[in-house]
Amino acid sequence: MRMLINVAETVVADALRGMAAAHPELRVDVENRVITRSDAPVAGKVALVSGGGSGHEPLHGGFVGPGMLSAACPGEVFTSPVPDQMVRAAAAVDSGAGVLFVIKNYTGDVLNFDMAADLAEDEGIQVAKVLVNDDVAVTDSLYTAGRRGTGATLFVEKLAGAAAEEGMPLERVEAIARKANENSRSFGVALSACSTPAKGSPTFDLPAGELELGVGIHGEPGRERRAMMTSREIADFAVDAVLEDLDSHDPVLVLVNGMGATPLLELYGFNAEVHRVLGERGVPVARTLVGDYVTSLDMAGTSVTLCRVDEELLRLWDAPVRTAGLRWGM
Amino acid sequence: MRMLINVAETVVADALRGMAAAHPELRVDVENRVITRSDAPVAGKVALVSGGGSGHEPLHGGFVGPGMLSAACPGEVFTSPVPDQMVRAAAAVDSGAGVLFVIKNYTGDVLNFDMAADLAEDEGIQVAKVLVNDDVAVTDSLYTAGRRGTGATLFVEKLAGAAAEEGMPLERVEAIARKANENSRSFGVALSACSTPAKGSPTFDLPAGELELGVGIHGEPGRERRAMMTSREIADFAVDAVLEDLDSHDPVLVLVNGMGATPLLELYGFNAEVHRVLGERGVPVARTLVGDYVTSLDMAGTSVTLCRVDEELLRLWDAPVRTAGLRWGM
Repeated sequence: MRMLINVAETVVADALRGMAAAHPELRVDVENRVITRSDAPVAGKVALVSGGGSGHEPLHGGFVGPGMLSAACPGEVFTSPVPDQMVRAAAAVDSGAGVLFVIKNYTGDVLNFDMAADLAEDEGIQVAKVLVNDDVAVTDSLYTAGRRGTGATLFVEKLAGAAAEEGMPLERVEAIARKANENSRSFGVALSACSTPAKGSPTFDLPAGELELGVGIHGEPGRERRAMMTSREIADFAVDAVLEDLDSHDPVLVLVNGMGATPLLELYGFNAEVHRVLGERGVPVARTLVGDYVTSLDMAGTSVTLCRVDEELLRLWDAPVRTAGLRWGM
Repeated sequence: MRMLINVAETVVADALRGMAAAHPELRVDVENRVITRSDAPVAGKVALVSGGGSGHEPLHGGFVGPGMLSAACPGEVFTSPVPDQMVRAAAAVDSGAGVLFVIKNYTGDVLNFDMAADLAEDEGIQVAKVLVNDDVAVTDSLYTAGRRGTGATLFVEKLAGAAAEEGMPLERVEAIARKANENSRSFGVALSACSTPAKGSPTFDLPAGELELGVGIHGEPGRERRAMMTSREIADFAVDAVLEDLDSHDPVLVLVNGMGATPLLELYGFNAEVHRVLGERGVPVARTLVGDYVTSLDMAGTSVTLCRVDEELLRLWDAPVRTAGLRWGM
């Protein structure tokens, strides 16, 4: 086991203590596992709450801050957080303007956020929900009915977060989140499996020299397994899989996301190929983000997410943001 | 080989094309391998040029931008750039106020930057140089006479970059860079080896269940090899190795750096342990940065760098910076 940990049981709590130490601009409730903006609730503004299993960092805790999430609830590694965390987060950040739950489409997350929404409403908090389901690789998967929620989560959280920061009311923030999700598609590729602390060994078997096309962010099986392909071939396959489902010649935001163990040097090289394919297919690129944003522990690989944008979404993308994981303009 | 590449020969050029595509705010000369701020030369201001072998991204290209480097010269993977790149970079960014070369202490880098300094001065460019040699693990190593330059490079580039941005003259910028290096110490730990594209397999042999204490950023041997340790034990060992050489109770900047393949979840957990040790040793922490900044391709592991700061260095650390890899306040 090549892990920088104490024991598997304390990995999430240890990470939260480390986040608290590194980021005095956040409030980190280690015991209850809730990370909030330290200035929450922000008077008159809608709050955004997200969360999910740990192991995808910087998602979600690294996206808490002005211009993005108001709070995040980390579960155990690859395990949904519980409704109590979500209700606590909602209560901590609600200013009275309401709360939007951003939910990746995994069965556990959906059930728990649904329950949390009911409980929060019982406490007088107005809650709206948006489901992220951008992964075109497969319908129905190991932990999902319908499409999985992956890289588009970053776009939904950034764009809706900017809308909330602008002071839009809950129904408008929800509409922006929905629009961001509906215009986003992703496709992921694994070059190696990942190892969870609890298991201590790879969660699935991927022989060296093979790759998994269409992998999920927990190593869920994809569309097919092939002998190793070049960066050029992978970009063709992944971008075409996305464009098959997002037929568009409008400008897009591009996320070339690292799964965790793939060097940034390689991700930038892959980005060159992604831009090449998009150029060949006549899809203009508005903005590009390259790096580890929605990860799967130590998995090697990448995913491509495209988000079709109009003027409104582009303005919201460019709006200032100040989080541990994404930061510009403030 | 689990790499997201086309062929080993084009890895650096491919990455530069990908950087150019992702960052229109940079000028990327793919053919000559020079990355510059697009607004360079900036009238009246000192320029900072750095560079070194590729494979350590975001270092150095990811640190080009307002408030940090004016230009970076990437060599082949783990191979020094050539003097011609450095001279070209210096000429592209010199406003007449002079250029500071930031050089990590590796024999090839030192020789080539020395030669480049002579050539640039022949062209009428005033050049100062600062050597980064912060790694306390070993004196003299595979590619180094004296101590290796590792994580402190980020501090030197950020602090001297802020000084240049403030309009300080060359000798003051050089003095800040020297002060940053003299007050910085690092110690690295490998949990796995890294694989270069050219070799396609691990560059050294580190059996699962063992770690290398004091490893260099190219996988150079460290002080000793041991059976796997906990995050807590590694933090004790690494921080004490640094503090043995940096006897101080002044505030420090902390960099908990990922080598490439260690999940951010683990790095944050490790950061909690680093803060614990520092607390026990009576060293106050001024600021903390956690993430992959000075990497070794797909190596698993971490390094700790401490930089002792006074009011001046802390002000320069907090000054705005806008690069692909570090960004705040602008």
